[in-house]
Amino acid sequence: MDMPSLTPRPVGLLYGGDYNPEQWPERVWEEDVRLMREAGVNLVTVGVFAWAWLEPAPGRYQFGWLDRVLELLRRNEIAVDLATATASPPPWFPHRYPKSLPVDTDGRRLWYGSRQSFCASSPEYRDVALHLVDRLASRYHDHPALAMWHIHNEYGCHNLHCYCDVSAAAFRVWLRNRYGDLGGLNDAWGTAFWSQWYTDWAQVLPPRATTTIGNPAQALDFRRFSSDALLALCTAEREALRQITPGIPATTNLMTGNFFGLDYWRWARVLDFVATDNYLVGTSTAPHVDVAYAADIARSLGRGRPWLLMEHSTSAVNWQPRNLAKPPGMLRRNSLSHVARGSDGALFFQWRASRSGAEKWHSAMLPHAGTDSRVWREVVELGAALKRLAPVASSTVDGQVAVVLDYPSGWAAEGRAQPSVDMGTFDEVRRWYGALWRAGVTADFAPPGAELSRYPVVFVPALYLVSDNDANALASYVDGGGTLLVGPYSGVVDECDRVRPGGYPGAFRDLLGVRIEEFYPMPAGGSVKLSGGSVGHAWRELGRATGAEVLESYVDGPVAGSPAVTRNGRAWYVGTRLDDDGLDQLVAQVLAAAGVAALVADRPPGLEAVRRRHPDGTAYLFLVNHADAPATVAATGTDLLTGADSAGEVTVPPGGVVVLRSSGEEE
Amino acid sequence: MDMPSLTPRPVGLLYGGDYNPEQWPERVWEEDVRLMREAGVNLVTVGVFAWAWLEPAPGRYQFGWLDRVLELLRRNEIAVDLATATASPPPWFPHRYPKSLPVDTDGRRLWYGSRQSFCASSPEYRDVALHLVDRLASRYHDHPALAMWHIHNEYGCHNLHCYCDVSAAAFRVWLRNRYGDLGGLNDAWGTAFWSQWYTDWAQVLPPRATTTIGNPAQALDFRRFSSDALLALCTAEREALRQITPGIPATTNLMTGNFFGLDYWRWARVLDFVATDNYLVGTSTAPHVDVAYAADIARSLGRGRPWLLMEHSTSAVNWQPRNLAKPPGMLRRNSLSHVARGSDGALFFQWRASRSGAEKWHSAMLPHAGTDSRVWREVVELGAALKRLAPVASSTVDGQVAVVLDYPSGWAAEGRAQPSVDMGTFDEVRRWYGALWRAGVTADFAPPGAELSRYPVVFVPALYLVSDNDANALASYVDGGGTLLVGPYSGVVDECDRVRPGGYPGAFRDLLGVRIEEFYPMPAGGSVKLSGGSVGHAWRELGRATGAEVLESYVDGPVAGSPAVTRNGRAWYVGTRLDDDGLDQLVAQVLAAAGVAALVADRPPGLEAVRRRHPDGTAYLFLVNHADAPATVAATGTDLLTGADSAGEVTVPPGGVVVLRSSGEEE
Amino acid sequence: MDMPSLTPRPVGLLYGGDYNPEQWPERVWEEDVRLMREAGVNLVTVGVFAWAWLEPAPGRYQFGWLDRVLELLRRNEIAVDLATATASPPPWFPHRYPKSLPVDTDGRRLWYGSRQSFCASSPEYRDVALHLVDRLASRYHDHPALAMWHIHNEYGCHNLHCYCDVSAAAFRVWLRNRYGDLGGLNDAWGTAFWSQWYTDWAQVLPPRATTTIGNPAQALDFRRFSSDALLALCTAEREALRQITPGIPATTNLMTGNFFGLDYWRWARVLDFVATDNYLVGTSTAPHVDVAYAADIARSLGRGRPWLLMEHSTSAVNWQPRNLAKPPGMLRRNSLSHVARGSDGALFFQWRASRSGAEKWHSAMLPHAGTDSRVWREVVELGAALKRLAPVASSTVDGQVAVVLDYPSGWAAEGRAQPSVDMGTFDEVRRWYGALWRAGVTADFAPPGAELSRYPVVFVPALYLVSDNDANALASYVDGGGTLLVGPYSGVVDECDRVRPGGYPGAFRDLLGVRIEEFYPMPAGGSVKLSGGSVGHAWRELGRATGAEVLESYVDGPVAGSPAVTRNGRAWYVGTRLDDDGLDQLVAQVLAAAGVAALVADRPPGLEAVRRRHPDGTAYLFLVNHADAPATVAATGTDLLTGADSAGEVTVPPGGVVVLRSSGEEE
Repeated sequence: MDMPSLTPRPVGLLYGGDYNPEQWPERVWEEDVRLMREAGVNLVTVGVFAWAWLEPAPGRYQFGWLDRVLELLRRNEIAVDLATATASPPPWFPHRYPKSLPVDTDGRRLWYGSRQSFCASSPEYRDVALHLVDRLASRYHDHPALAMWHIHNEYGCHNLHCYCDVSAAAFRVWLRNRYGDLGGLNDAWGTAFWSQWYTDWAQVLPPRATTTIGNPAQALDFRRFSSDALLALCTAEREALRQITPGIPATTNLMTGNFFGLDYWRWARVLDFVATDNYLVGTSTAPHVDVAYAADIARSLGRGRPWLLMEHSTSAVNWQPRNLAKPPGMLRRNSLSHVARGSDGALFFQWRASRSGAEKWHSAMLPHAGTDSRVWREVVELGAALKRLAPVASSTVDGQVAVVLDYPSGWAAEGRAQPSVDMGTFDEVRRWYGALWRAGVTADFAPPGAELSRYPVVFVPALYLVSDNDANALASYVDGGGTLLVGPYSGVVDECDRVRPGGYPGAFRDLLGVRIEEFYPMPAGGSVKLSGGSVGHAWRELGRATGAEVLESYVDGPVAGSPAVTRNGRAWYVGTRLDDDGLDQLVAQVLAAAGVAALVADRPPGLEAVRRRHPDGTAYLFLVNHADAPATVAATGTDLLTGADSAGEVTVPPGGVVVLRSSGEEE
Repeated sequence: MDMPSLTPRPVGLLYGGDYNPEQWPERVWEEDVRLMREAGVNLVTVGVFAWAWLEPAPGRYQFGWLDRVLELLRRNEIAVDLATATASPPPWFPHRYPKSLPVDTDGRRLWYGSRQSFCASSPEYRDVALHLVDRLASRYHDHPALAMWHIHNEYGCHNLHCYCDVSAAAFRVWLRNRYGDLGGLNDAWGTAFWSQWYTDWAQVLPPRATTTIGNPAQALDFRRFSSDALLALCTAEREALRQITPGIPATTNLMTGNFFGLDYWRWARVLDFVATDNYLVGTSTAPHVDVAYAADIARSLGRGRPWLLMEHSTSAVNWQPRNLAKPPGMLRRNSLSHVARGSDGALFFQWRASRSGAEKWHSAMLPHAGTDSRVWREVVELGAALKRLAPVASSTVDGQVAVVLDYPSGWAAEGRAQPSVDMGTFDEVRRWYGALWRAGVTADFAPPGAELSRYPVVFVPALYLVSDNDANALASYVDGGGTLLVGPYSGVVDECDRVRPGGYPGAFRDLLGVRIEEFYPMPAGGSVKLSGGSVGHAWRELGRATGAEVLESYVDGPVAGSPAVTRNGRAWYVGTRLDDDGLDQLVAQVLAAAGVAALVADRPPGLEAVRRRHPDGTAYLFLVNHADAPATVAATGTDLLTGADSAGEVTVPPGGVVVLRSSGEEE
Repeated sequence: MDMPSLTPRPVGLLYGGDYNPEQWPERVWEEDVRLMREAGVNLVTVGVFAWAWLEPAPGRYQFGWLDRVLELLRRNEIAVDLATATASPPPWFPHRYPKSLPVDTDGRRLWYGSRQSFCASSPEYRDVALHLVDRLASRYHDHPALAMWHIHNEYGCHNLHCYCDVSAAAFRVWLRNRYGDLGGLNDAWGTAFWSQWYTDWAQVLPPRATTTIGNPAQALDFRRFSSDALLALCTAEREALRQITPGIPATTNLMTGNFFGLDYWRWARVLDFVATDNYLVGTSTAPHVDVAYAADIARSLGRGRPWLLMEHSTSAVNWQPRNLAKPPGMLRRNSLSHVARGSDGALFFQWRASRSGAEKWHSAMLPHAGTDSRVWREVVELGAALKRLAPVASSTVDGQVAVVLDYPSGWAAEGRAQPSVDMGTFDEVRRWYGALWRAGVTADFAPPGAELSRYPVVFVPALYLVSDNDANALASYVDGGGTLLVGPYSGVVDECDRVRPGGYPGAFRDLLGVRIEEFYPMPAGGSVKLSGGSVGHAWRELGRATGAEVLESYVDGPVAGSPAVTRNGRAWYVGTRLDDDGLDQLVAQVLAAAGVAALVADRPPGLEAVRRRHPDGTAYLFLVNHADAPATVAATGTDLLTGADSAGEVTVPPGGVVVLRSSGEEE
């Protein structure tokens, strides 16, 4: 189901944020709604942390206050993304069911007092939460303000893994489903090593604290299980809602940019549309690329359909060591970058800054300082801008290339006892994405087994683990005319983290025409020179080409002469982690070989360019200038934000945004 | 009650240390006492860790050995500070009452085997400890050697927080007393956020390990409770002693310079006089300022009355990664700096260096090497010097300015999910104090609600949290003619850590004539330039003056143009953390505006100058030269240490000390 | 018993590795054995992690597969080092006996799922393990392939300490044996301090997590106990094997180079010959010296008799953050350095690289890439080289000097509340050993109380703790004509970690003619200049010579003028930690004074030279060139590896190895 256009669904782009009226005396609510209208807010998320107000005691529900909130919003034509409120059980719940509290790998029970303090496998949690969902849906199923359901909140953010006995039992059920019998499990986990052979299901445990390195396949399956255990809860909520409100779309807010603990490819399938939260990290050197990265993952999870930026911040967050505020204009650029990449709106956490609690220092649409503030003025301006961008709604973005992102592979590569701690996956995917951003090419993400034939080029930055099927899919893609660039330490293990014998890169050895016999990880901070002048980090390899053309080889050290960059027809390989310059050059070379050009030619650095398009051909070219200098590019169209027409050339001021509409024929 | 002048109380200044005869065969005691006399020792603290020898089994007491020790000391005219011995329960106690052992936030029980291994809320600990106190007091209440009581030892040093179920129950009692009902608690803690609404007292817990950021107000109240729980034990011991020995003063050794875990303002009220321990930290760049800091806090806790340096070290301590020994002369300077600032003596831990145990590498008055040693020679010299300084005893020091120090505010600012980890309180108070030290101005400390009208200037380096009453007291102080300098991130929350809405610095907005709308914490190591040339660190603010004169504004970055240093009549504000140079300049500016000059004019850097004074006007100007060069200043009087008269000018040699007596009229 | 020459014992040097056939389908075994023969393998270790296959359920044994493996090996004339398989209990064991799982100092139970997850004091573990040993020995006692027994594996690597109640009880038994009664314990532990006096054995515990610094003597005894608890298991296995196979030698693989948790001097006594594992650490700047260090310790533990390198790696390991592969030739040099220093062979972990499990990224003799690989080619070459070196077998190495290494002293010095964390022992012993390596002198190691008269020089780099007997032994050694160099912070405490009073260095004060009264540890990274131009780190001392000649004194700081390097006849002392240059100079000075010269004169840096010798005088001079340049030295003999004769001079190519045989008369 695509994002809905129901009665209460606002026309155009969605604008608003989390609204937690239970934090405030009822007299404040009128002011809230008046200011929401002033800011152009048309959708608010209500009830995310309201369980304690909805069910103050076991089985005793109170909805009067929520009735009044929803009625107030309806009267003011503000639609509601109604939360199921299950993300933060009230104290009475864990107090009554202490076994529902999560337990960490050290056997330490984690108490309530913050949020998400529950074990995903707890039957009590599941029962009581679903009962609440059922009551909420039953009460508000036909409420005219109800635009969509907000299932839970940021699944797995704080309770991703639980090692308690209940979880252990659930893990065993999951494993039985996966492997059938203990023989299958023993084979998959390689329990022949270190005498770990299981002879009774009751012996099988989560990877609890142990004396030294645990079984890597056990750890990997536990991460898969943990993702699925939470997904089962999400699916159960989704099903409960569908029973009662089949026409109301439901989603949950993922965290695509910073969180890689859940296999979001599996999650996206159960959501009516993808929503994500996107918070910046203060130590990033390119936060605007981080924004684009999270947005493009979100869009890709939804297979290109419009999605929704469910949360971001107007300024600082509260959970980092140093929470940097956004300089003027950044709030607008961040929001519109998301819209440029397919979000049908821009929402924030939260509407009104809290006075108390763990997030009182998190910025909001309405800051502590009130309306006489930079943030509020920018919030009002953004609301007006989004209104002008209404025609963009429901248009889509087409990625020019694809980047393969696989969660379980990344989990396996993060395991203990790997050749090098420097070979993590998710940072490297982000780094390759950065090269594509700098190249001005719009990228989609894809799981490894996806049908990729529509992309002229596919990038595989780091795919340590790959199944035969998924490896074959990539080979077929190249057979079918696609161009592929594979990064180091890929294809080396199967889906059970078992090394593929006979030489690396295992599953891709024939496809790439390269045979690596030994890895030479580098000491911390080390580097290696390549014959073409590039510099590699972290990793080197000893091997030879078995069919591929050697484009660059290592110049020095124990691997001198071994191939570093190769090309086997359309299948390229790089066996080290190139620095950004080298990566930019290699990516440019591969794009050129496949005939892929930047979306906008002759683009100055720092100018982000993305195009959304309607089925009728109407297109919107978003130009977001993240640089300190004006950016001029060749482009034609009418700026939706100012109404100005550009013919042939447009200049985007420093920090500015231009959205050029053009009809399909013009292109 | 002031410090006593009882029969056994030595005339003049007190000199000695912790004496633990139970560590040594009885034959050593005679040598101990002989050497004490040689060194001029007139007071020793006995029994701090003697519980196991006083009560070797439950309810079985043995006092014979202590009788002999006290008699030996009495015969040698050495007075006794008799410890209640409750700081280190013997193994039989926790073995018999395992629930008395403390439990940390992770639920980990902390065992015996070191010291202070008890839960402050344990009723068994309280009963058994008070019984011991009662027995001690009953036995020695009229012992002629008994000069004072030494309650416990360094309260809270190692068992400040306990998260066990017994503590949880005690915490609930404390909270009921504070808030009356759950409504009050829910309001104070802002439990509306994250669905933390308590509906039954039994649900309320200490801030145990949880999934993510806990409730900050809960954490703050738990720190208050923890301070009070230990204070209740101290008070109970004090009351038990007062019952039996109403005339013997009682104190406990605080740790004013390095320990900010207890609200010492509340503690000082129950002590007959303030005593403190003061150990230097090897990584400090200005240990002589650290000495002064701890001393001035101790004096201020006792509202200016004489106090007692109960412990410091002759040379190295044992608990730091690298325990630096004191270079020659430092022992003397450290001791006399304390005396200069109001201590009526100088005591050490411990008399004779241990051969065994956790502190065997802690220096002592009598080192492992014995009397043929630098340390021993300096100990003997110091004893002689203190004898010459006897007239100083019971004179007092008047602070020229006050610095506001509030423990709960500091605890709140140290909480999680603050805007920046760089905005801690206690280090910043120490840093401002350093500026006053360098300015040559004698500073008192004061709690925020204190009556401050006797001070021409009051400094508020960091007061994140402030109640309305306390904020009003500061406003009244300025109204009454006082000059105030407030540092950044002050006044922003109320006593429950609830943000004061409407713009920062909240409670001080009107007083300072400044309205800040947003904080801009800086990245790690960042800095910001001010228009006057100063440099700020850690923190910047976006705002505007609403009445104040802007003395300096930010020059660059997102807050360019916002006020950084302002003056609203006598109320000054600085919105960033100035580096030491900038702080020195600003402090000088404020002092000058209020007409406060250095105690001694034209003082070279490194020369410490403090004056003690008797009610009759006799004054003692202490000049301690911490520099490598001789220091000459204008001063008149007779050096108590050498008998030399100075008329108009005195030169203090490098590393030396001069104590000039002058009669009241001379000044 | 020396290393055996039983029927299946290969002639010459042993070559092979851990062979874990249970990891592979039986069809692979034939290939394994074929390739072993190709590589010249003549010994494999079988069954180290096979418990689960030998005893798949409690008391149910299956030996068929092992029968087939041993028969296959026998047929191919490959001898077997048969493991007792007790190092990794299968899941059924801890599942059945959960109390057998170890508990850490925080009370956290460590689960199974890796290896060595058992408590050394568990009676269940002991019973079940010994039963398995008995069954293995009974079945294979007369198997013709059985060459030796491999007891357990790397004792204590992951379960060195257990703090559970069972361990507590065992600790008490151990303490009773050591001290007799509680009086002895209280005296030894100095429980007078901090009121830790024990009045009932039941009160005595392992050093579990406590509130602050625990009792250091308790911690030390717990380390002693932990070593003995594992040793008791090893001894029990050894005795069980001896009962059934009195003629088959038994050993266990120690970890002499990197592991100092067990008192190997006590362990070596129960082994028929010493075996060790030796893995390099990637951050080392001199791995070739590390190899020599571990080898020389192993040889010394066996009192100079031939020993066996039981495990090392062909290339990278898997347990470091970055696991560096070995460059070409290093595998051979590493192996032959061990042989040079007395190993009668070179074995590896493991034969065939695993596909699964915690060590799948550990290199092997047969890598993932198979036989077409650098590693395999080097393995085959090494096999051939070892065959040519067969005559070397059973010859021995004579150390020219001795270095004192004491485990308990090192443990005590690593305790908490020491003067400086920079004064650890084992790294310093390694550093002094490095100076001897660079001096070209062959060093033995010795425990402090050893009979040392055969050595012209003895080095004591760091011997914090020493008993009277051991101190007297060193004094007698000097009396008897020996030359001694003692490093700082030595002799200061007795065997119970009690400070020796009267001045440092305590037990060595008279011997060295130096009296130190105070330590002056340096701040992190600090240094001190010596009068002779050397530079000291970490440590300085205040004291004076009381008979010794002062060779160098401190130039600056608070200890200026105090002695830094002294000589009291043949007893030398250095009171600071000299940097490598200073250490090299001092070591050279001491060696020269005692008339000890390098084994090979005029040796270029990086050339390792060691001589093995047969009782008949036949000698083998190993020359291993670790440098990038050819090394030419004066030497005569026939190179066993090439057959080339050298007369007067031999040149070793960069990275190369020469082994010159000479008859006794030639020297």
